[in-house]
Amino acid sequence: MLQNWHEELEGMFDQMVEWRRHMHQYPELSFQEVETPKMIADILEGFGIEVRRNVGGRGVVGKIYGAKPGKTIALRADFDALPIQDEKEVSYKSKVDGVMHACGHDGHTATLLAVAKVLQDNKESIAGNVVLLHQHAEELSPGGAKAMIEDDCLEGVDVVFGAHLSSLSELGKYYCKPGYSQAAADAFEITVTGKGGHGSSPHETVDAIAVGTALVTQLQFIASRRVDPLNPVVLSVGSFHSGNAKNVIASKATLTGTVRTLDKDLRVFMEEEIRLMAEGICESMQATCEVNYIKGYPAVFNHEEEVAVFEKAIADSLDKEMVVRSSPIMGAEDFSYYLLEKPGMFFHTGARVEGMQSYPHHHPMFDFDEKAMIYAGKAFLSIVDHYIAVKSEEEVAEAVQ
Amino acid sequence: MLQNWHEELEGMFDQMVEWRRHMHQYPELSFQEVETPKMIADILEGFGIEVRRNVGGRGVVGKIYGAKPGKTIALRADFDALPIQDEKEVSYKSKVDGVMHACGHDGHTATLLAVAKVLQDNKESIAGNVVLLHQHAEELSPGGAKAMIEDDCLEGVDVVFGAHLSSLSELGKYYCKPGYSQAAADAFEITVTGKGGHGSSPHETVDAIAVGTALVTQLQFIASRRVDPLNPVVLSVGSFHSGNAKNVIASKATLTGTVRTLDKDLRVFMEEEIRLMAEGICESMQATCEVNYIKGYPAVFNHEEEVAVFEKAIADSLDKEMVVRSSPIMGAEDFSYYLLEKPGMFFHTGARVEGMQSYPHHHPMFDFDEKAMIYAGKAFLSIVDHYIAVKSEEEVAEAVQ
Amino acid sequence: MLQNWHEELEGMFDQMVEWRRHMHQYPELSFQEVETPKMIADILEGFGIEVRRNVGGRGVVGKIYGAKPGKTIALRADFDALPIQDEKEVSYKSKVDGVMHACGHDGHTATLLAVAKVLQDNKESIAGNVVLLHQHAEELSPGGAKAMIEDDCLEGVDVVFGAHLSSLSELGKYYCKPGYSQAAADAFEITVTGKGGHGSSPHETVDAIAVGTALVTQLQFIASRRVDPLNPVVLSVGSFHSGNAKNVIASKATLTGTVRTLDKDLRVFMEEEIRLMAEGICESMQATCEVNYIKGYPAVFNHEEEVAVFEKAIADSLDKEMVVRSSPIMGAEDFSYYLLEKPGMFFHTGARVEGMQSYPHHHPMFDFDEKAMIYAGKAFLSIVDHYIAVKSEEEVAEAVQ
Amino acid sequence: MLQNWHEELEGMFDQMVEWRRHMHQYPELSFQEVETPKMIADILEGFGIEVRRNVGGRGVVGKIYGAKPGKTIALRADFDALPIQDEKEVSYKSKVDGVMHACGHDGHTATLLAVAKVLQDNKESIAGNVVLLHQHAEELSPGGAKAMIEDDCLEGVDVVFGAHLSSLSELGKYYCKPGYSQAAADAFEITVTGKGGHGSSPHETVDAIAVGTALVTQLQFIASRRVDPLNPVVLSVGSFHSGNAKNVIASKATLTGTVRTLDKDLRVFMEEEIRLMAEGICESMQATCEVNYIKGYPAVFNHEEEVAVFEKAIADSLDKEMVVRSSPIMGAEDFSYYLLEKPGMFFHTGARVEGMQSYPHHHPMFDFDEKAMIYAGKAFLSIVDHYIAVKSEEEVAEAVQ
Repeated sequence: MLQNWHEELEGMFDQMVEWRRHMHQYPELSFQEVETPKMIADILEGFGIEVRRNVGGRGVVGKIYGAKPGKTIALRADFDALPIQDEKEVSYKSKVDGVMHACGHDGHTATLLAVAKVLQDNKESIAGNVVLLHQHAEELSPGGAKAMIEDDCLEGVDVVFGAHLSSLSELGKYYCKPGYSQAAADAFEITVTGKGGHGSSPHETVDAIAVGTALVTQLQFIASRRVDPLNPVVLSVGSFHSGNAKNVIASKATLTGTVRTLDKDLRVFMEEEIRLMAEGICESMQATCEVNYIKGYPAVFNHEEEVAVFEKAIADSLDKEMVVRSSPIMGAEDFSYYLLEKPGMFFHTGARVEGMQSYPHHHPMFDFDEKAMIYAGKAFLSIVDHYIAVKSEEEVAEAVQ
Repeated sequence: MLQNWHEELEGMFDQMVEWRRHMHQYPELSFQEVETPKMIADILEGFGIEVRRNVGGRGVVGKIYGAKPGKTIALRADFDALPIQDEKEVSYKSKVDGVMHACGHDGHTATLLAVAKVLQDNKESIAGNVVLLHQHAEELSPGGAKAMIEDDCLEGVDVVFGAHLSSLSELGKYYCKPGYSQAAADAFEITVTGKGGHGSSPHETVDAIAVGTALVTQLQFIASRRVDPLNPVVLSVGSFHSGNAKNVIASKATLTGTVRTLDKDLRVFMEEEIRLMAEGICESMQATCEVNYIKGYPAVFNHEEEVAVFEKAIADSLDKEMVVRSSPIMGAEDFSYYLLEKPGMFFHTGARVEGMQSYPHHHPMFDFDEKAMIYAGKAFLSIVDHYIAVKSEEEVAEAVQ
Repeated sequence: MLQNWHEELEGMFDQMVEWRRHMHQYPELSFQEVETPKMIADILEGFGIEVRRNVGGRGVVGKIYGAKPGKTIALRADFDALPIQDEKEVSYKSKVDGVMHACGHDGHTATLLAVAKVLQDNKESIAGNVVLLHQHAEELSPGGAKAMIEDDCLEGVDVVFGAHLSSLSELGKYYCKPGYSQAAADAFEITVTGKGGHGSSPHETVDAIAVGTALVTQLQFIASRRVDPLNPVVLSVGSFHSGNAKNVIASKATLTGTVRTLDKDLRVFMEEEIRLMAEGICESMQATCEVNYIKGYPAVFNHEEEVAVFEKAIADSLDKEMVVRSSPIMGAEDFSYYLLEKPGMFFHTGARVEGMQSYPHHHPMFDFDEKAMIYAGKAFLSIVDHYIAVKSEEEVAEAVQ
Repeated sequence: MLQNWHEELEGMFDQMVEWRRHMHQYPELSFQEVETPKMIADILEGFGIEVRRNVGGRGVVGKIYGAKPGKTIALRADFDALPIQDEKEVSYKSKVDGVMHACGHDGHTATLLAVAKVLQDNKESIAGNVVLLHQHAEELSPGGAKAMIEDDCLEGVDVVFGAHLSSLSELGKYYCKPGYSQAAADAFEITVTGKGGHGSSPHETVDAIAVGTALVTQLQFIASRRVDPLNPVVLSVGSFHSGNAKNVIASKATLTGTVRTLDKDLRVFMEEEIRLMAEGICESMQATCEVNYIKGYPAVFNHEEEVAVFEKAIADSLDKEMVVRSSPIMGAEDFSYYLLEKPGMFFHTGARVEGMQSYPHHHPMFDFDEKAMIYAGKAFLSIVDHYIAVKSEEEVAEAVQ
């Protein structure tokens, strides 16, 4: 039966491409999505699926009811775009200046729509339910996931799965990792306050640039000395702004940056260390500072059991060799919030265009091989099949071998 | 006779105040002066003084011809204002938003106008000439002095003197110093170029903030280690700008700053050291940089003989105790250009308002005791008297004692 | 049969303790071992085992010939001690001032001696050979392993296994990890040469302390910025020496340190980065430097197949739950050299004394639970059994289940 | 009469050379002088001069009583040597290994002995007294001056003068400066305490080298940012010692250094700033520190009136052109203690050997032109003459012109 589902999905390829390219041409920024969720909801309703709009703000939640009772499986696709200018030359190039689907969320959405159609058409063979989580605002903290959860999108859900297309990874492969697989991403803003004055009289001032730049150097010691080298961490200062004139000593310097951690104790530790360092350095140079540490998405923690389910589902229905155990990545993903609530896991689907140069996510030339949507969709169908498909006795016997 | 001149000047006090307050209400920025030079030229012509307008751009040069031949003495007053908002509450507060005579140049000009009137009225007792250098644009490098010199304002001049009012120094005192008395003021702009990237992947980038901030720290070593502690120097970084986002590693950082030196060899040395440091640090961290070193005004070097003349002129005509030998100051002054061409000196005249809080030059609350204009004017008259007054035999005999 | 071997080993416990405690009282430093290898060789010969002395300098290699032909399995134990003062109060405390078995090598040796006895006594049931690698000088680069290999200690060997006791890990557990499991440990010495002079005249000098200390700070950027946060690295400066007097600026500064990496490309990269940083910083501050980068032991890379063998051997003969998959550790081990030549793996055996405070390796209070020798020995026997024991048909049938 | 004194001094040149060379061959370290003070005292007593031995420890004070009452003039010469190996090849090379008169104190002493002889022989023409301060231990804080003063060497003294030979300055010139002319020299010792550990586990330690080296860098900001650029200061770290092994993170780092200031408020400020910086940096990096700030000699402050006396005395008796107004120097001198008690001044006498390479003081090749002793001695005689010589009427008339 899963074989049929996979084939039905393949048959929808042109439709997926059409959906994806439409969204690609009309991208919408995080927390500003209007047309995209409307389109999603309309399509789902067109399939006869029950839809709840404006979930947690701008999310769309669909629910497919199987013919028999059983577990409820949630599948998630995000649909927001990025403030990046599309620079590639294709027929489906973004028509919105400075906004672009440069992370593949258009592909995620098209995939989940097609998966929904297949499952809705086959609900008679399902003993349980499927919840479709079409999420807004993944790119911008605090993100849409948290708000959708608070708006009960996970009600009744037993397990939750999510997929990401990956433009730099091999088409036809799935990448996953049990445990911490994507970093927590926190931010910080530090304002150093000294005392301004004329550039020729440093002794009458407290030079905020001298203090702030010394602080940037000292912050390096946290990663190099204070943290277990086996416990991955990144502390990057992303901006430093101070002063307006060559010959005036600045009274304020403002630094902002990002902190990435996998381990949750390390995350707490980093905030403490940054505060301690900022205060000590400022004190030593007679300045003061304000440190604003902004918690972003937590680390993605894939549950071991669901990773095993995923690996088995792919092995059984497709090919064991298609699953690759990967290293964690330091990029963040608000799918982590779903995993704090429910068992589940998040996987990446290779989407590299063979024979052409590949560009990383968030790059103005970003694109992906649209066939990857079939792979992502098949994985979703295999997962659903694993948990709640009504299988013939023959199929069951086959699976046991 | 000098006694008469001094008295005539005192009699012009109300006029000086009126001129000064008019200019104070209608300040004009450097290289944008239109009404001020017109007013000056009109007043001088009204006195019957020969005037050349638009000298070196916007300067005004007057010439008073004594009755008999003799030396030519140049006296200089600058007349530009600053981009500072006047915040004091007085009847003569600036009427131009964001522009203010916050350095006393209005007082300098009023003083020289009154001195000109006195000398023109007494030209019969003068054996020589007086050149009045009303200079634009002292506050903004490359300044007006250089352009006026190139436009021959010093033609035929034998010695040149200049005065500055000083809001923090005691009224009734003159401050001078032979040799280097005010610093050369150079500027620099350094652009560090690294390689940008995502904040979570520092290893794929060359972090321009990390490099630029390390450079600011290393630049401190020039003042602390590379320069003779007895040879005053200031190197201040006035601005540091890099990066637009918390989670993106910046590819460029831009630093600007000022360098103050008295010694001219040290000035050359500083440029070399800054270049060497910037290049070495960037190389060590795999970035590149561009260093733009902008020569500003040279140091003011007062000629020993003219300082002695000044001290003697004040001692003879007023009081030896009024002259104070002062330390050099790290602030710059483009009077230095005149002193590279001709013998002469530059002195400061105390102008502190007793019994009230004093504010430094370039402060939004800056003001000065207008009586200081009389002191500055008397000093100019004493100088002129020393060089070219036709003195009675009695007076000469008196002076020798 | 393996069951018998394990029992025979247990029966030797008192002997193992006696051997171990003797060595503990008479420890010998790396490359200075005389009595220990003699004792080992004598004991082995006493068992009737063929022995080669002075292998690669001070190593001892024993060879047990099985009754039938088959594979050759090498087992390794190191026997050198450390320049640490024994501070614990026990009857078997070190009798050599300042020298101590603070890493458990005495236990490794006693274990392998007992294993040798059991195997020699049972050589009739063995189809293949066992090579006993009693290695000197593990604690001090360049180590004994390399020299023993060059002296053909691995001739004819098919696979090689090594064990380490671990004073902080749970007794009764084995810890292993496929792939990189222990870091490469390189060292560096950097000599910064400036120009000395009087402390009151820094401008006539190039201050080697200023340069050297700036370099230490800049070296932090390598770990914090230049290396993938997922690729573990440590760069520690262990010593910094410069200057003899408070008021004299030093002309030389000497830094030494250690670099730990797992990844072999990163190891090459680190040397390049350190050189680049040292040269750039010195150039920027007009000093010169010499960088001596000393390659130490490579990273331990456990071969996947042999890790699987180990896990299976323990699971089959003892208990699957006794094997723990561990994280890599940043400490080095010259067992890595054997693994560059032959398939094999290195595992840790828990040896924590329950109910007492545990001290880390290289600590003056270090000790371990001597029963851990039985666990380590049983693991060796299980490995040998796996590869080359002559098994009855019954046993074979049992193992398949 | 002074003319005669000068001639008598010239006549003693061979004797001065003999004395000087004897001391040069038998130098004695500070606070270890035995033979030198004995020789001085014996010679003075041989001249019939009243001598007090062991003043303030090892000093020698002679007193010459003029025929008539009058002022008491003190003249000072120091006599200790340095822990430097004499490397020059001359007949009078040091015979004491590792000890050398590398600062010219032997010349100072020989000069004052000859001056004493001339004055004692001419005491009939003196209306007042001369105190001869032969001081031990100038090179080593706390120095001999303070102890001699506490032992009443300045009792009854009206003015005090001291001279130094200067190997790099022109023979035949005297160098002096009113006000601050030589720096205060303080010392500091900072011990940073972190927490040691294995080089591969920085996160379990507080790396004292990381903290200490960061501190050295941050200390540069005091000179570059915190102090008026017109107020000379030096802060040099002279030694930095930490760690014994490449692969062990050090728990302690010890820094020592020197601080030179002219201004006495700045001297107080420097101690405060160093403490603040050390504590702040340590706190920011979770280490602790102990700062020991050791006050050394205060700055030499020459009294204006006595500088004028000196200049006049040289102008009158020798040549006005021989006196050069010099810049302050950052080297210290415990003559400063005498000047805290009594009016007086300290001058330098040019002693460069023309036509040969000159070496700075404290250099193993240091030497000076012995004729400089005649210049130094003549200056002393001129000073004494100025204050207390009984002059004929003719001489007085001559001097007035």
